[in-house]
Amino acid sequence: MSIEEVCRRIQPLETSLQVKAQARLDRLTKPVGSLGRLEELAAAYVAITGELKPHVPRGVVFTFAADHGVTLEAVSAYPREVTPQMVLNFLRGGAGVNVLARHAGVDVRVVDIGVDYEFDTVPGLLHRKVMKGTRNLAVEPAMTRDQAEQAVMVGVELATEAVREGIGLIGTGEMGIGNTTPSAAITAAMTGRSVEDVTGRGTGIDEAGRRHKVSVIERAIELHRPNPTDPLDVLTKVGGLEIGGLVGLMLGAAAARIPVVLDGFIAGAAALIAVGLQPLCREYLMASHRSVERGHRVILDHLGLNPLLDLDLRLGEGTGACLGMDLVCAAIKIYTEMATFDEAGVSEKS
Amino acid sequence: MSIEEVCRRIQPLETSLQVKAQARLDRLTKPVGSLGRLEELAAAYVAITGELKPHVPRGVVFTFAADHGVTLEAVSAYPREVTPQMVLNFLRGGAGVNVLARHAGVDVRVVDIGVDYEFDTVPGLLHRKVMKGTRNLAVEPAMTRDQAEQAVMVGVELATEAVREGIGLIGTGEMGIGNTTPSAAITAAMTGRSVEDVTGRGTGIDEAGRRHKVSVIERAIELHRPNPTDPLDVLTKVGGLEIGGLVGLMLGAAAARIPVVLDGFIAGAAALIAVGLQPLCREYLMASHRSVERGHRVILDHLGLNPLLDLDLRLGEGTGACLGMDLVCAAIKIYTEMATFDEAGVSEKS
Repeated sequence: MSIEEVCRRIQPLETSLQVKAQARLDRLTKPVGSLGRLEELAAAYVAITGELKPHVPRGVVFTFAADHGVTLEAVSAYPREVTPQMVLNFLRGGAGVNVLARHAGVDVRVVDIGVDYEFDTVPGLLHRKVMKGTRNLAVEPAMTRDQAEQAVMVGVELATEAVREGIGLIGTGEMGIGNTTPSAAITAAMTGRSVEDVTGRGTGIDEAGRRHKVSVIERAIELHRPNPTDPLDVLTKVGGLEIGGLVGLMLGAAAARIPVVLDGFIAGAAALIAVGLQPLCREYLMASHRSVERGHRVILDHLGLNPLLDLDLRLGEGTGACLGMDLVCAAIKIYTEMATFDEAGVSEKS
Repeated sequence: MSIEEVCRRIQPLETSLQVKAQARLDRLTKPVGSLGRLEELAAAYVAITGELKPHVPRGVVFTFAADHGVTLEAVSAYPREVTPQMVLNFLRGGAGVNVLARHAGVDVRVVDIGVDYEFDTVPGLLHRKVMKGTRNLAVEPAMTRDQAEQAVMVGVELATEAVREGIGLIGTGEMGIGNTTPSAAITAAMTGRSVEDVTGRGTGIDEAGRRHKVSVIERAIELHRPNPTDPLDVLTKVGGLEIGGLVGLMLGAAAARIPVVLDGFIAGAAALIAVGLQPLCREYLMASHRSVERGHRVILDHLGLNPLLDLDLRLGEGTGACLGMDLVCAAIKIYTEMATFDEAGVSEKS
């Protein structure tokens, strides 16, 4: 399968299903519309999956890990070895995403798509390394176009396999020291906004560090001139391998009619690429939260996504996605478990 | 025990505990502060309960049901018999609050504190009826001061018993056709804002209905002149029995150092009375969400509470509280289950 083929398989939503789902929601023992965005989520789940009587889905968060050559430019507060260290922390269950995934009743699958470290046979790690980290996008393209396509296809395949196993809800996660830099570069390239507007403090650099990061990204964009009408060109020149994996995850899930709950800024950058490749993909995306990272608001506005939560999160890993998936499951339970006015013998609005 | 005695038992929070909790949060494998409001919730839970190593608490939502004499003035979209009908729906598990409580892993306890209906021996219903609904506040005080005190003490006793059983987290819920009218009246009386500013459409009246509701409340306030420096006077003249129960629930929980997760507008009106009686009570309250009902924003601003969720909910019953309690439990798990940098062998910020 190719990326073009996956994109062709993505279909528009059946809006008639959304209308049918809302009709059921309106028969439940509550004032019409009074569960607000939970109702919207339930109707979206029905329209995406085509299941008018859905079960509460099994959910998985895919946490893609990769390194970034641009860390040579001192754009991050943490040293590069934290990427493999955190991969091991994920596999032992001690990271934020593990805790919140257990809370939400979803699994975490950790994917080495480009970490600059040789993991031995670590139980649970999915070995899909495309290369040992990207090149330094400040001086050369982050990867070749072929490598970018490979990374995307890793995500497509993981989504496709998960759906085949019966997974009905997919969340995005990532780990990669330095990865707010390619994410900001992608956001600037894809939205046309200034680098200044979309570049934040990542895991915790100071304002001087942020200004340095802006100048690194500005130089890279000047050097590579990534073409927003060719999203794979943008991914190739200023992207990251985990971002490529996330792009494929979104496309693969949408092609299989499974919703994708986005985490924060890095997921948002990947969504810009995925929606750039196939605009219909957007209807399959649900934004879990609005990150503190300033570029995230730009992305959400650009894609017209309204985040469910605004809890000042900026960890990544898939932590926000877990909370969002928990809300999607709550919404599906509202849709399937609440009594109707008739069933409960409750009088209706006079 | 009297209301004054409960108020006296409420102590200021130990801020040193909040500092200790934040110190632990800062040792966890994540950038400092990157889990935003989840960290804030965890630290607040520690400071409120005094438990530096808390277990995930057993939670209960108390849903107080009562009728309102003011429904004679045609202020609600639904007929009065819906109050007992919904009580039976709660007991059968078919209402929104039941679904979301199961989702969050908390119990729902349904309290008849003033429904205008004789329930026979219905399994699960807590019989604490003070009177069969309030009087019509448009023409006479809603209740006597003695009845208002009784209603508050019902809540105090239920909170006290729950804490004795080992409950560590309490949510507020309510059901009472017409109860956004006394809630708006309380909000206007306690905050000094105009009735127009704090009166919304409740379960779904139209704009003409809302203007009528405003005029009913304005007349009632003109007639009774409730005294905001005597919050029980406000509750007596323009309140509701379920609102009184909620006031007591908050005071009783705070006296026992247990946090109370507030639902929406009606819970907010009760919080104005509770905090009016004992300002220290506020530190024990967590706002789950911002309701669509316009007066709710006024209440949250007045109390300085920052809601966790903004999902366009306006159902009540305790539905938003369930989602908020779910987040509090997630926050406690972050605090207790995440690995520290040392435990995980992860390098720190350079």
